[in-house]
Amino acid sequence: MKTLKFAVLPGDYIGPEVMSVALDVLKAATEPAGIKLDYTEAHVGGAGIDNEGKALPDSTVKICEEADAILFGSIGGPKWENLPPAEQPERAALLPIRKHFSLFANLRPGLLYQELTDASPLKTERIPEGIDMVCVRELTGGIYFGPKHTKTLEDGDIQATDEMVYKKSEIERILDVAIATAKTRGNKICSVDKANVLTTSVLWRETATEYVAKHAPEIELTHMYVDNAAMQMARDPNQFDVIVTENMFGDIISDEMGIVCGSLGMLSSASLGTGKNSLDLPFGLYEPSGGTAPDIAGKGIANPCAQILSAALMLRHSFGENEIAEKIENAVKQAVMDDKRTGDIAFGKPSIGTKEMAAAIIERL
Amino acid sequence: MKTLKFAVLPGDYIGPEVMSVALDVLKAATEPAGIKLDYTEAHVGGAGIDNEGKALPDSTVKICEEADAILFGSIGGPKWENLPPAEQPERAALLPIRKHFSLFANLRPGLLYQELTDASPLKTERIPEGIDMVCVRELTGGIYFGPKHTKTLEDGDIQATDEMVYKKSEIERILDVAIATAKTRGNKICSVDKANVLTTSVLWRETATEYVAKHAPEIELTHMYVDNAAMQMARDPNQFDVIVTENMFGDIISDEMGIVCGSLGMLSSASLGTGKNSLDLPFGLYEPSGGTAPDIAGKGIANPCAQILSAALMLRHSFGENEIAEKIENAVKQAVMDDKRTGDIAFGKPSIGTKEMAAAIIERL
Ligand SMILES: CC(C)[C@H](C(=O)O)[C@@H](O)C(=O)O
Ligand SMILES: CC(C)[C@H](C(=O)O)[C@@H](O)C(=O)O
Repeated sequence: MKTLKFAVLPGDYIGPEVMSVALDVLKAATEPAGIKLDYTEAHVGGAGIDNEGKALPDSTVKICEEADAILFGSIGGPKWENLPPAEQPERAALLPIRKHFSLFANLRPGLLYQELTDASPLKTERIPEGIDMVCVRELTGGIYFGPKHTKTLEDGDIQATDEMVYKKSEIERILDVAIATAKTRGNKICSVDKANVLTTSVLWRETATEYVAKHAPEIELTHMYVDNAAMQMARDPNQFDVIVTENMFGDIISDEMGIVCGSLGMLSSASLGTGKNSLDLPFGLYEPSGGTAPDIAGKGIANPCAQILSAALMLRHSFGENEIAEKIENAVKQAVMDDKRTGDIAFGKPSIGTKEMAAAIIERL
Repeated sequence: MKTLKFAVLPGDYIGPEVMSVALDVLKAATEPAGIKLDYTEAHVGGAGIDNEGKALPDSTVKICEEADAILFGSIGGPKWENLPPAEQPERAALLPIRKHFSLFANLRPGLLYQELTDASPLKTERIPEGIDMVCVRELTGGIYFGPKHTKTLEDGDIQATDEMVYKKSEIERILDVAIATAKTRGNKICSVDKANVLTTSVLWRETATEYVAKHAPEIELTHMYVDNAAMQMARDPNQFDVIVTENMFGDIISDEMGIVCGSLGMLSSASLGTGKNSLDLPFGLYEPSGGTAPDIAGKGIANPCAQILSAALMLRHSFGENEIAEKIENAVKQAVMDDKRTGDIAFGKPSIGTKEMAAAIIERL
């Protein structure tokens, strides 16, 4: 009997509620295939700070190390808002965990079903069939992890510096992920940079051009400046198929993509590591793109789809269970099409709770 | 008789067409007040490369130095697209001119008239009364002008670095501009940074908090992470009044703001220098936010409003002619409301050409 060994980090506010039903869906989807779930729960984020004094407790890291993947919940919220920015749960948990497990590739599907175009801030005529793209963000390099310093100058002024650093090899490995993603889709990659200003972007652009030509000449590679990409994303997101970009630009552009896709409650993400797990597949962290929705926490009405779709991504990337992943994705879509919807995506139609939503998805597996 | 001495850099493609009628409007607006225009034209951008071998020719710099302000046209386009990114006209003209004249403060009004909400990609119900905000971008610091280097590592890998550098004094002077702008509007500033990751942003946030509390306690200051700002801009732009942010974030967020405001043909900008001109007012560069629209160049149908509104900003900031500036701004708005519109903002209504548009504005001064 195949066993899936993963860590479950439910997180804060709505985190545990949606995690709980996501595990139900995962169980229902894998059981018929004779697959067993073997997971251990651990604190992270605000729950980590409150229970163990640290957003990413050592005990949590240990549990993750012993697993083949991490199913991660949303973290943070008003309770910890007055902490200094660098100590806030999201930042204090996510940056170290990315670094520790070399989670260098963040994949965010930008998916909006045609049935949900009302959820997008964009005029419906701009996205008549919804949105379907993927953003591939480099996640362990660039200005996030480069050297930082602050000093007092002779004249008393204070000067701060952050270094954006990229190696060619780091760019090549994220291109590999973008290429693999593009091959499962339209064979189109748009590389986003600021090569007219940044040296790192010049290296990025040259490397992309050279590497794609050499390793995947069938792929159509284009380049776009990040300022233009921010415009194009809000103007016509469907011009993109796969975007690949560096850490900071990816942070901004993928969040813009998220909002343009309407409900954050539907958006999942995968952060893949350089390391292989015990199945010789990429170790990865899988999490919803949206936040912890403190205003509705505990009410049983949060949208669990993002967490459920993140579990599907885990099945695909870290456990090689493509078929079951697709089954879950189709069931989520079918439920929404059948008007089984939580409040955030109901648009005047009757809405259902978190558990009912999960049940509707399980019925459609 | 008061004389306005400025340099006119018409730029490329539609640049000269819209510049020519903008000068007509400027003349018509200032003449009744007994004001004379004294301007000298010079090449810049592609025209600079083609005529003098340089995107920013020395002779052009000299003409600008002798003036009290620069009225600048859009530059760049397909003709120079195959040049390396760093040599493309926009980049090769704008970065040196900003540095040379210490144009540290870029002001971009994000203005969408209620009559033009069709032009925005956003659903009309999100912006029922149009959009009205201002983005204040720091323009001579940060990663644009910090040290850059590339080196080959021992293992043969290549590594590139760009340094983002900010001094407290640079942050304070851009805050001064944001404060002055906020005082003419709703007394609200949103400072955009990435203080959970960047040291420069920590300095930015601390300086903003301290400086506004000390020098303009009546202003309501909020802080937002740049990734969230990219979401909020596409979700609900009117939550912003004045945004202040560093160079790179401002590049991205202000372009997103531009597209959200619909027609780029309506958007102007001012880049103010640290230096004072002969009138003891800020030396500045005034330019449309949109591009050179090569597809319609020479057809006499380009929207001249962005260039005309840039001229109005010049009157206000570098010549202290607030009343005439407002007169022009009102005339542009009135013309659009009276359905005098170029093709880009006509939306099915009959459209008029560049010259007719300018004439309609002059009639309404
Ligand atoms: C919390 C923060 C450090 C993080 C980032 O900037 O990467 C978040 O915004 C994200 O995108 O996951
Ligand atoms: C051309 C480029 C260097 C420039 C910038 O990034 O500042 C442009 O995008 C702008 O915003 O004026």
